[in-house]
Amino acid sequence: MAMLVVGSIALDSVKTPFGEAKEALGGSALYFSSAASFFTQVSLVGVVGDDFPKDNIEFLAKRGVDLSGLEVVPGKTFRWAGSYEYDMNEAKTHATDLNVFEGFRPKLKPEHENTEFLFLANIDPVLQQDVIAKVKGPKAIGCDTMNFWIGGKRDELLKTIKKVDIMFINDAEARQLAGVPNLFKAARAIREMGPKILVIKKGEHGAMLLTDNTVFSVPAYPLEDVFDPTGAGDSFAGGFMGYLSSKGEVNDCNLRRAMIYGSVMASFNVESFSMERLKTLTKEEIEKRFKEFKKLSHFEGFEV
Amino acid sequence: MAMLVVGSIALDSVKTPFGEAKEALGGSALYFSSAASFFTQVSLVGVVGDDFPKDNIEFLAKRGVDLSGLEVVPGKTFRWAGSYEYDMNEAKTHATDLNVFEGFRPKLKPEHENTEFLFLANIDPVLQQDVIAKVKGPKAIGCDTMNFWIGGKRDELLKTIKKVDIMFINDAEARQLAGVPNLFKAARAIREMGPKILVIKKGEHGAMLLTDNTVFSVPAYPLEDVFDPTGAGDSFAGGFMGYLSSKGEVNDCNLRRAMIYGSVMASFNVESFSMERLKTLTKEEIEKRFKEFKKLSHFEGFEV
Repeated sequence: MAMLVVGSIALDSVKTPFGEAKEALGGSALYFSSAASFFTQVSLVGVVGDDFPKDNIEFLAKRGVDLSGLEVVPGKTFRWAGSYEYDMNEAKTHATDLNVFEGFRPKLKPEHENTEFLFLANIDPVLQQDVIAKVKGPKAIGCDTMNFWIGGKRDELLKTIKKVDIMFINDAEARQLAGVPNLFKAARAIREMGPKILVIKKGEHGAMLLTDNTVFSVPAYPLEDVFDPTGAGDSFAGGFMGYLSSKGEVNDCNLRRAMIYGSVMASFNVESFSMERLKTLTKEEIEKRFKEFKKLSHFEGFEV
Repeated sequence: MAMLVVGSIALDSVKTPFGEAKEALGGSALYFSSAASFFTQVSLVGVVGDDFPKDNIEFLAKRGVDLSGLEVVPGKTFRWAGSYEYDMNEAKTHATDLNVFEGFRPKLKPEHENTEFLFLANIDPVLQQDVIAKVKGPKAIGCDTMNFWIGGKRDELLKTIKKVDIMFINDAEARQLAGVPNLFKAARAIREMGPKILVIKKGEHGAMLLTDNTVFSVPAYPLEDVFDPTGAGDSFAGGFMGYLSSKGEVNDCNLRRAMIYGSVMASFNVESFSMERLKTLTKEEIEKRFKEFKKLSHFEGFEV
């Protein structure tokens, strides 16, 4: 098995200056799978209630996503409602109804335990540790988190981080976790907590990769209209981990290209509400935008 | 004549978490000249009082900077005092004593009027227009400004901008000038005000170049300690305009490389107080860091 993702599946109601979506597909695991499925074979582990419109994720099955780990339990699916102002930097949460997600305990089938790559989306670090304990020596474990866990379950989060190879975190959370304002100092401190590979997501300012040998920066794709930033981070991680999984080897060259594929997937995702854009996207469009990123950041060996 | 800069010359008292400097060399024209002098022949037009320690700018003369436009008038030199907190993003101004700078009217010698490249550092847009009216068809006019003029002399600033080829502005000021939060939309709006070439400086997030054909992003150099951000923008402009002037031609290829040289000069400048680092810097160090920028942003055609 190539890639396993464990995370949330939600119905999101989102309002932005460009419009709104009601009870649309959301959640870290769905965004991640949608993006990663363009690159590799993904298995998804998560939980929904019996009200979940399963037909709506048919597109994932069609892209080869293994949904055998999608648990359906009596009750309501996790719902989140939020809005964004014009600056699009931070979501204002209006309601978080965990519903069946509250009792979520990830269940891995034997084939899931043998995954080559594991992505722990943003869930309780205690659950993240559970999953890590179950998998049998994957090539790389990636994880995401959020300010809620950094502030509220710091010790548990540190235990997770210690076992993780690739950490995805946004710039504000990186400063919060490390307790220093300088981002490069924060990055060093976080890498000393465990993950040898750190990806710092900076929204409109792009993303940074830091390893033992590398500092690598990718700009954000120049979008004049960001319709809905929900899921940008998970789409990034999906493109990144999906590409790595397709190459099978974690090295600086693949990591750099993974950063670009992550940026490509995030840039498409924010072009419409929910995962509408990721649904219609084609491999050709992805490759075209990959090339555009070269134009955005290369200053030699590239004729302009 | 290759390059003319008109701007302020000051004695700065700056405090940062790393230390402080008292009445040290400062001002946009001095920072610009220090940086540009590594690339091209620079003439400086500005004013100081009779208390100015002229010996302290001997290093500029040694680098070939033409100081014949440095006017010395009775009275005290412009003084600025400010401090930075740990985040280093914005200076807190403690005192601004314009002194002789208040009556500054740029005087250009005949050879200055024939400059190939002109840089209007951050001064009153009315003075910037005066200078533009005096020069005879330069290859390119660059200009900088600040929130003070955007808010207080908007109409005059718009008149200046209309005549400018290359505008340097930071991200907050770009949003303020254009009145929109999205940076790419703001960039489009500003380019429609006149300058075909726009450089948006984003501090720790690097810088962006926008032309008719190009969106190009440069990351900031990864510095764990920024000792004093004063003059970073002017050093950037100095490296950028200096390099362009050395090539003599404004095209996308040269502009991309100019962005890197600008970033290189700004990154050195913030490594110490005042222009101490720019004083000791060598061409070899500049070229070495230029190459490091390639490593920071290239993901193909570059072995890591």
